[in-house]
Amino acid sequence: MDLEVWFLGTGGSIPSPGRGLPSIAIRRRGELLIFDIGEGTQKQIIKLGLGFPSKMRIFITHLHGDHIFGLPGLLQTLSMLHREHPLQVYGPRGTREFLDPLLATGLVKATFPVLLREVVGGEVLDFGEYEIRTALGKHSVANIAYALVEKPRPGKFYPEKARELGVPEGPLWSKLQRGESVEVGGRVVHPQQVLGPPRRGRKVVYSGDTAKCSSVVELARGADLLIHEATFSKSLTERAERDLHSTSVWAAEVAKEAGAKLLALVHISPRYADPKVLEQEAREIFSNTFIPNDGDCIAIPLPD
Amino acid sequence: MDLEVWFLGTGGSIPSPGRGLPSIAIRRRGELLIFDIGEGTQKQIIKLGLGFPSKMRIFITHLHGDHIFGLPGLLQTLSMLHREHPLQVYGPRGTREFLDPLLATGLVKATFPVLLREVVGGEVLDFGEYEIRTALGKHSVANIAYALVEKPRPGKFYPEKARELGVPEGPLWSKLQRGESVEVGGRVVHPQQVLGPPRRGRKVVYSGDTAKCSSVVELARGADLLIHEATFSKSLTERAERDLHSTSVWAAEVAKEAGAKLLALVHISPRYADPKVLEQEAREIFSNTFIPNDGDCIAIPLPD
Repeated sequence: MDLEVWFLGTGGSIPSPGRGLPSIAIRRRGELLIFDIGEGTQKQIIKLGLGFPSKMRIFITHLHGDHIFGLPGLLQTLSMLHREHPLQVYGPRGTREFLDPLLATGLVKATFPVLLREVVGGEVLDFGEYEIRTALGKHSVANIAYALVEKPRPGKFYPEKARELGVPEGPLWSKLQRGESVEVGGRVVHPQQVLGPPRRGRKVVYSGDTAKCSSVVELARGADLLIHEATFSKSLTERAERDLHSTSVWAAEVAKEAGAKLLALVHISPRYADPKVLEQEAREIFSNTFIPNDGDCIAIPLPD
Repeated sequence: MDLEVWFLGTGGSIPSPGRGLPSIAIRRRGELLIFDIGEGTQKQIIKLGLGFPSKMRIFITHLHGDHIFGLPGLLQTLSMLHREHPLQVYGPRGTREFLDPLLATGLVKATFPVLLREVVGGEVLDFGEYEIRTALGKHSVANIAYALVEKPRPGKFYPEKARELGVPEGPLWSKLQRGESVEVGGRVVHPQQVLGPPRRGRKVVYSGDTAKCSSVVELARGADLLIHEATFSKSLTERAERDLHSTSVWAAEVAKEAGAKLLALVHISPRYADPKVLEQEAREIFSNTFIPNDGDCIAIPLPD
């Protein structure tokens, strides 16, 4: 049950020779969740061989061009590939005003329904095995931060306990492992009798564009991976305050206060051809920090 | 007086791992002319270090998404760079209906005037040292093919003739070389007395998306470089007929009939991971054919 985070575009505002516009993809059990869709996203998906599975969802953090101008091309490509499965898009209020004219021009002749849900922050979207939690960030326009939170899994299975209770190895074990009760020789065996305590799922959080804010700290509580924007070095703190972006230091403070396990800095301003200084500044506060490059992927292992 | 042709995106319809969506840039004496602007064009311009000069013009061949979805992002980037110089855009009828809503949404807050001229094919646009000629292709929607044609330069300068006529080396020679008459000791010396016959300028032609058609043959007459779409191999001729695209063979026939000097095949379908077969098919008809890769540049020398 792999969960991979693909950094499709790690730059911000304007592409640089090394960094494309914002997009993060999470691949999990055949699903592809795309967070932000800057220009060039479809090219990255194709180049990295991620494919366009029927179970694909798009989450837009905010309506600035650098985060959304890859959507028209993706919709066109999916139509050329004759997609029929509906595509679910989530975004802040106003996303409809961007999407509807696009679909109306005839330039994108979508061969599939595009289903839009606008969110304001605070909603929890339930997708069965996981949920997507949302929080309003602190930016010049409404920015939704997203958290993918897997629901707890059943606890560890103890075969010796099952044997003691007379449950034969085979399909009944699988049922117990999934958390279901089984009947053996007229007796009911409950999963609690053969399983350890439920194990937590994984949590990955993406800030979108935001200054440091408590709502993202809360959303990121205990995250296995926090992907936080760090547009500026701390030397440009005043600029970050004015533009409502984050410095590397603010991102690190959010990770530390949230008790996150790992911090990835993204939305790197094109002024930093070598963003090592941002990484160093952040590590002084939160050591487990890295700056991914476009195309990088990290797998988040299941907790024990 | 360099003239460079940069192949920014050489794929067609859908990006492939190796080829981005259509865009060709011509750099000439500090001007940048962009022909088609598929998604990813601005990233290529930045990556290749071409910059965004004040003298930049955009020519759109037709209103299919893969040829124009890079425009919103470019306009946004130019605005973030505080461009003030007007940007001239040329495209087929209907370009205004694409551009106006884009500028109206507020997503692109253009800091400069975007001046649009719609063309139908057959117009000649005069830019002083060169003109852009247009022709209507043969596609599923109106497609404008463009030819950059430099005006003739003054002929070769013969210093010995100037000396014989008593014109001293220096500023007067420069005037004669530019085609202006000069006065020496009460006598007028005309440029024709010291120059050879006018020398032709260079010609670069870009087809956009089109089946083989006589209007593009006419437009490409004697071109130094014809950039022609070759979406399909000749084995898919029926498909090309149906979709009004070209095969490699058709592109080569156009080059041959037009008496072009060099043929570049672009708009390569993503089905051809290795398009060597297209190149071979074309070379059987027109040997001076090549398939550029994304990022390739060729310089077109001045004719003698």
